Amino acid sequence: MKKVSLLAPGPTPVPPRTLLAMAQPLIHHRSSDFLEIFGRVREGLKKIFKTNNDVLVFCSSGTGAMESAVTNLLSPGDKAIAIRGGKFGERWTELLEAYGCQAINLDVPWGYAVKPDDVAALLKADPSIKAVYVQALETSTGVSHPIKELAQVTKDTGAVLVVDAVSALGAYDIPTDEWGLDVVISGSQKALMLPPGLAFVSIGPKALEMMKTSKCPKFYFSWAKELKTQSQNKGAFTSPVPLFLGLLDIFEVIDEMGGLDNIFEETALKSKAFKAAVAAWGLELYSKENASTGLTAVEAPAGIDAQDVVGWLKNKYAIFIAGGQAQAKGKIFRVAHMGFISEFDTLQGISAIEMALAGLGYKFEMGAGVAAAQKIFGEA
Amino acid sequence: MKKVSLLAPGPTPVPPRTLLAMAQPLIHHRSSDFLEIFGRVREGLKKIFKTNNDVLVFCSSGTGAMESAVTNLLSPGDKAIAIRGGKFGERWTELLEAYGCQAINLDVPWGYAVKPDDVAALLKADPSIKAVYVQALETSTGVSHPIKELAQVTKDTGAVLVVDAVSALGAYDIPTDEWGLDVVISGSQKALMLPPGLAFVSIGPKALEMMKTSKCPKFYFSWAKELKTQSQNKGAFTSPVPLFLGLLDIFEVIDEMGGLDNIFEETALKSKAFKAAVAAWGLELYSKENASTGLTAVEAPAGIDAQDVVGWLKNKYAIFIAGGQAQAKGKIFRVAHMGFISEFDTLQGISAIEMALAGLGYKFEMGAGVAAAQKIFGEA
Repeated sequence: MKKVSLLAPGPTPVPPRTLLAMAQPLIHHRSSDFLEIFGRVREGLKKIFKTNNDVLVFCSSGTGAMESAVTNLLSPGDKAIAIRGGKFGERWTELLEAYGCQAINLDVPWGYAVKPDDVAALLKADPSIKAVYVQALETSTGVSHPIKELAQVTKDTGAVLVVDAVSALGAYDIPTDEWGLDVVISGSQKALMLPPGLAFVSIGPKALEMMKTSKCPKFYFSWAKELKTQSQNKGAFTSPVPLFLGLLDIFEVIDEMGGLDNIFEETALKSKAFKAAVAAWGLELYSKENASTGLTAVEAPAGIDAQDVVGWLKNKYAIFIAGGQAQAKGKIFRVAHMGFISEFDTLQGISAIEMALAGLGYKFEMGAGVAAAQKIFGEA
Repeated sequence: MKKVSLLAPGPTPVPPRTLLAMAQPLIHHRSSDFLEIFGRVREGLKKIFKTNNDVLVFCSSGTGAMESAVTNLLSPGDKAIAIRGGKFGERWTELLEAYGCQAINLDVPWGYAVKPDDVAALLKADPSIKAVYVQALETSTGVSHPIKELAQVTKDTGAVLVVDAVSALGAYDIPTDEWGLDVVISGSQKALMLPPGLAFVSIGPKALEMMKTSKCPKFYFSWAKELKTQSQNKGAFTSPVPLFLGLLDIFEVIDEMGGLDNIFEETALKSKAFKAAVAAWGLELYSKENASTGLTAVEAPAGIDAQDVVGWLKNKYAIFIAGGQAQAKGKIFRVAHMGFISEFDTLQGISAIEMALAGLGYKFEMGAGVAAAQKIFGEA
């Protein structure tokens, strides 16, 4: 049995105290105790989303919440822009097409960020476009799309902006109300340090208005149904009670870590240290612009299959990082900085990658990455 | 702080060892360790469903799996029978209508079971009917519908039988293959003794065939997508890892409890003892036929609001039983026998109800219910 370390971009490690908070005996999901917990969860989520909007909670993976942002806003035949700069961007198109909507695909080369002007041009050319779907952090490439600028571009049009922040929320600042984001989606298993199983959707006034005329079919993921019941602090269907207990504990964990803004700084520091190690190895980031602080995507050296780096860490050290997906498979490996990952977890990851790279025949100065990262941490 | 006891028909108590099994550090949902766990979960579920069919796992409440049994079988405009003998039966109609299908409502008075001949007559009158939707145990009334007989009625027609066994599976015998059940749905939080968050769907050959022509839109709950990935022991989307660990532990718990068939006997014994107490109080069951062994629905005495009984137990003793829903609200209270509930938990419930009934002014011999139940347990 090896000591396992999770450094993949989700699920991320859960604080042991939170695991134990979730191991409390079950309480009934319609009891007054649980309604009180549900109310505290709703309030806490508003703080994390930095919004006064309602934030709905679903029992599903993040994809369920993404689906809800299609079916509750659009009607069959409606047009929407899917910003596709990676695997998760492509999911928007699949979702739109599954529900008979017209996806206007705005393809962005993997590793690059969407240009807000390109979105503006599409919206201007066709005022019937009803929504723009985008990832805050495209987990498959490590790129952060320019969400604040996209909100400015959509603001005065008839289109709503829907932001998948599953891997971004809690990793860096996405202030929903300050930026005027119509819909923001997140999940429990990334920067929020919980197991998978809860998905969240913040819904602003423009989206609420659009919801009223949406004709796509929905039931389990119906916003109207959940807005009605969750305003009374209960889910329309049976809530996954332990994850609610876990989320209450995470609110405390966030406070004890110095609050959200402090967590953003620490995540950025881990990212800076890791990226310094990458430079010290003479390797390149896969993210050619807007490299996210939530995770780092690294191009493997020429002649080395990135999956071998991932496998080396898993098999020799029980350290889990992620490889590339689809067109990036074999070319890159990805390491998370979001969530319950310390600077020493980060150094451990750097150390293991160095040993893997050396073992796989890459020539560089062993220890250079660790030294570069320690320098950043030491100076902070 | 009071010692809480859950006697409501879900969520039921979770064995403490299982809560701790779920509190293990997270592992990655795409790791080989998790694929191996997923494979064991798939095999274990087949034993519980008593089937060789694939049993899909979804991260959702049971309602999500119910939705999947509409959207993956039917196309808009298709006709289907919704057997409605309680609140959960009504959900079929809501689901069918949400997806543009035609619900043929077969209304059964609450407290009674559907007559298979009535279903046969409807199917004969209209061979275009594509599905029959029913609850095994209608949780809102305590009635078990005659599933074996319904399967005989649908077998030689073009219609599939879809059985919601969320509160039945694991409480009493529902042998999927022996009875030839096309689709069986269940959830984690009832007789399977886990927290809410997992839903299951067993899919037989006739349903798989119908799935191929289904045109209702779906994405998160797509059977085709999940059949493809789960055959490789992984979910299409992020799996709720701790519940999988919990389910593996529950498989062991079931073995240590003497196996499924022994659990069915013990559940029936608790039901028999509880129903003997109800008779000793001079009260009536709400289930006028096919009273289930999974739970008991009791009519409150004339002049006493059943919600006051529920409230008395909750407020004075921290014991959670359930009241009636919709038309049965205030008239009945419901007590579970399924899941991790011992004979002494059952006696505690009986004792508390006796004290509540007495406190609310009902005249009967105090202790008669406990004595009647003890007699049953003692003789067993």
